[in-house]
Amino acid sequence: MTELLLIGIGTGNPDHITREGIAAIRAADLILIPRKGAGKSDLAGLRERIIAEATDTPPQIAYFDIPARRAEDGYLKGVDDWHDAIALRWQAAIEEYPAAARVALLIWGDPSLYDSSLRIAARLDPQPKVRVIPGITALQALTAAHGIPVNELGAPFLVTTGRRLRDEGWPPATDTASVMLDGECSFQALEMADYHIWWGAYVGMEEQILVAGPLDRVASRIIETRARARADHGWIMDIYLLKKRGN
Amino acid sequence: MTELLLIGIGTGNPDHITREGIAAIRAADLILIPRKGAGKSDLAGLRERIIAEATDTPPQIAYFDIPARRAEDGYLKGVDDWHDAIALRWQAAIEEYPAAARVALLIWGDPSLYDSSLRIAARLDPQPKVRVIPGITALQALTAAHGIPVNELGAPFLVTTGRRLRDEGWPPATDTASVMLDGECSFQALEMADYHIWWGAYVGMEEQILVAGPLDRVASRIIETRARARADHGWIMDIYLLKKRGN
Repeated sequence: MTELLLIGIGTGNPDHITREGIAAIRAADLILIPRKGAGKSDLAGLRERIIAEATDTPPQIAYFDIPARRAEDGYLKGVDDWHDAIALRWQAAIEEYPAAARVALLIWGDPSLYDSSLRIAARLDPQPKVRVIPGITALQALTAAHGIPVNELGAPFLVTTGRRLRDEGWPPATDTASVMLDGECSFQALEMADYHIWWGAYVGMEEQILVAGPLDRVASRIIETRARARADHGWIMDIYLLKKRGN
Repeated sequence: MTELLLIGIGTGNPDHITREGIAAIRAADLILIPRKGAGKSDLAGLRERIIAEATDTPPQIAYFDIPARRAEDGYLKGVDDWHDAIALRWQAAIEEYPAAARVALLIWGDPSLYDSSLRIAARLDPQPKVRVIPGITALQALTAAHGIPVNELGAPFLVTTGRRLRDEGWPPATDTASVMLDGECSFQALEMADYHIWWGAYVGMEEQILVAGPLDRVASRIIETRARARADHGWIMDIYLLKKRGN
């Protein structure tokens, strides 16, 4: 392998793919597709569909299983070990196709945003040239679906995680925050009467669910909707934007 | 008009357009294209090229001049009046084509991010249904070009403006900030030895220029490169990401 292509594919809408992404799929000799297990098997199916729609002569596809993440050593250490383990799976899959010069991965959302692929790619040996093709992020799919800008006029915004919101409370020096990677509806840690929320699950997909309103009035609806959708689908991806009220 | 399509087209690379964006261009009856004056005329040309590559039967195109912005009443008031004036231009252009049910605008980057189109659309009377099609942002084009993630592992990041960075200094509670809308290389207001910068101009375009390194060592190179490129092209768009060093 001489080049690794990390292709952002957006958030589950096959039409999120860019022309640059389609060209990269066509240029690849080999595409690696992760399997996360039964609940998320539709995501492997989505990747196969994007490839099939991009080209009549699809490249070789190699599947790899994502190893389990061990939590006992703390969050950062657990993630670090997990990235090591995934890099070994990539390496093993790539070595099965020694003639493949250009290897691609289809990255959910965008490879820059709360995604591990660049960090995993840095562990490959020998180190290939890495090219990133940007894709639509969940934050953009969320704001597009709600028809709102992310920032107020000339104002900053923070992007953070559910864990940070729970542990540290509302971030200083901004009235707008987007929360990702939140499995626990961490907005409940806030003084809910002070915020407005725009929430979405499966944003951009056919299954998309949106809820927006004053946080204290819609929080329980979001919690219930999220739990039910997760049970129905076997998995969930959701994201939200919070703004201080009265702005 | 019954529907207004705000189509994110990315940052000047015609291949940033998504399949959803191409479909929206094809579905439009009328596309409004802004003219900003001689220096930025290549941006009108880019939009025409994206339309021509999206469809063999292009919709009607109406050009409108972007009115001048008056600064004397302060920043926010000036922007507000400017949005009023642009809305009147949109309205006038649309009224010339009463049969056009679906009207589209091709929005640089993504309509959610430091963009005025949603605020201008809200001023139209009667109020059309507005649909947002997300596009690649300058922040994503920047991080893709540098091959870096925007966030550290599980960590937050702030997106802000040059004005805020100058007026308020480094934002609290984050080690990563992306700065947009900065005509003054506002990173000079920081204690430069403490930061690393990834800077880019015309990101995603053929003219793309990238500089990265410890801020105190590359700041003067960025300032000079930016001034020269701006003089050469007659316009510039740039963006940068800053991270505290030692993280």
